[in-house]
Amino acid sequence: MDEQVTITVADVGELRLIERLRARIGGPPGDEVWAGDDTAVLTPQTPALLLTTDLLVEGIDFDMAYCNGGDVGWKALAASASDIAAMCGRPSQTVVALGLPAATPVAFVDEFLDGLLDAAAQWGVALVGGDISAAKEISVTVSMVGHPVSRSAVLRSGARPGDSICVTGVLGGAAAGLIALRTGAVNNDEPAFGRLAERQLRPRARVAEASILAEFEPSAMIDVSDGLAVDLEHLLDSSGVGCSIDAEAVPVDPDISYLEGANPFDLAVTGGEDFELLFTMQQDQVGGATEALGTTGTPITAIGTVTTSERRIGNRSVEEWRERGWEHLRSP
Amino acid sequence: MDEQVTITVADVGELRLIERLRARIGGPPGDEVWAGDDTAVLTPQTPALLLTTDLLVEGIDFDMAYCNGGDVGWKALAASASDIAAMCGRPSQTVVALGLPAATPVAFVDEFLDGLLDAAAQWGVALVGGDISAAKEISVTVSMVGHPVSRSAVLRSGARPGDSICVTGVLGGAAAGLIALRTGAVNNDEPAFGRLAERQLRPRARVAEASILAEFEPSAMIDVSDGLAVDLEHLLDSSGVGCSIDAEAVPVDPDISYLEGANPFDLAVTGGEDFELLFTMQQDQVGGATEALGTTGTPITAIGTVTTSERRIGNRSVEEWRERGWEHLRSP
Repeated sequence: MDEQVTITVADVGELRLIERLRARIGGPPGDEVWAGDDTAVLTPQTPALLLTTDLLVEGIDFDMAYCNGGDVGWKALAASASDIAAMCGRPSQTVVALGLPAATPVAFVDEFLDGLLDAAAQWGVALVGGDISAAKEISVTVSMVGHPVSRSAVLRSGARPGDSICVTGVLGGAAAGLIALRTGAVNNDEPAFGRLAERQLRPRARVAEASILAEFEPSAMIDVSDGLAVDLEHLLDSSGVGCSIDAEAVPVDPDISYLEGANPFDLAVTGGEDFELLFTMQQDQVGGATEALGTTGTPITAIGTVTTSERRIGNRSVEEWRERGWEHLRSP
Repeated sequence: MDEQVTITVADVGELRLIERLRARIGGPPGDEVWAGDDTAVLTPQTPALLLTTDLLVEGIDFDMAYCNGGDVGWKALAASASDIAAMCGRPSQTVVALGLPAATPVAFVDEFLDGLLDAAAQWGVALVGGDISAAKEISVTVSMVGHPVSRSAVLRSGARPGDSICVTGVLGGAAAGLIALRTGAVNNDEPAFGRLAERQLRPRARVAEASILAEFEPSAMIDVSDGLAVDLEHLLDSSGVGCSIDAEAVPVDPDISYLEGANPFDLAVTGGEDFELLFTMQQDQVGGATEALGTTGTPITAIGTVTTSERRIGNRSVEEWRERGWEHLRSP
């Protein structure tokens, strides 16, 4: 036998691939049923259920030129866990649907599951089922359930004039990481490039942070997936309010400054996929929340205030910034 | 303006397409939140939750040469509703992830949502959220939640020797419909071809039937998505039992006989996507269940008996039949 032969998805077949997926699914607790039946049977312990679905497509959301199966699995899981966190929620279980070209190496599927399960373990999520189909390109749909940490979920619609606008972590790193990967800057010895690539390939969902923030009663929350300007606008639209953002206060990822030609502030405001939490809360709660989050190592920055209608980030309107943001399908 | 110009997904952009999807989502009851936030917030009324995900890919699960967006939406919804029904469950809410090539007409998306929502209304399912991404091929992932009709879900693993093996409806029609569509036989005046095409394009999930069957305590249940032989084998494997199927009793779709060159029995045993319920129950319950199902117009046929180990469909082994069944990814 030639050890160099790559075993592909076509060699193995759909049913055996699904068995491979099932073999990676753990044993369920108590009355639950996970893989191996028509659906999973879960026993949620809270009255409210959070449900989300996210689709990642090869060449759009990830590129096999610069990431491996493990990165794809991790990111897909992180994106959905971040959506649950952004409701001030805790994710619990997930199902995954994989579209796979026949020529895909089976090793990709195994790496994918490794990355997905690593991320799942990180945020306390159980993989409970899935589906696999042939396809012309790799696609991953992660659907996830969870529950609000407090009695009710924190929506995008609760921001009130006078509230502080805050964000966890630093911004722009994931977009800068994409540039570093695409330009090959990542091959440079400078460790900042490795950290930026990590932010693009292995983003962190702010699950533990959301659970802590719940105690300080955020009035509205969203995760930064499409860029600060775009996601801020979603929150403002839902709440029917405006904002005044202090440009100086926006926490720009310091590693971006190593990237020649990049505009760090632009990337912080328009770059997507940072998966930080953007939220509003009463001003007198911000200090306590910041201190409480110290245990996670994740900073909070107050970047501005909710207004009645005017919407500014520094001396530009939010709309102007949003126009520079990401929109995947639009023709150039 | 030229009325003949086709407006494409690329012309409209991802965010506006998502708004288009959201506009089709109804208003939620009470404390629930559907589209427009990071996740949907649901308030399930039962302690057990059923969760499933199904991926349909263009060229594998459907072909735009012979189906429209409405057919795709209907079938995607039906496949997941059928999975929930196969737990003796009732589906309640769904989220959908759509992969769309830039050149896809926006009309496809609207038709797709029409078909999806028609099917959703049919089986009492609410569309509560979704995601859209650019892609090279059309893909649809429907993830659905529901709850068991009785105290617990009916698994694949409960079949006991001596139980009757039953199936709803008739078999082979969906596979025959695919042949009729591919060969163009469907353009013939014979109404049987139209009915077969309908079984392929607009399959029925047996949701009402499952709710009625629950009263007669089926011991095991699965839906016929990959073909009788394959799905029967799944059920037998899960239960650790065998079967004796009376070939004469298998309910073959009578319309298949109009299809020249097709072997009706072969299609009934190996053809997939009929989405009928295959279940086992105590023999003395079958009469009552058959009568109760009369209100739905769906017949039940007892096709055999659960045995301790031997597995036969007529004079062939189940394994031989399964080998002739569908497996999408395997190389020819």
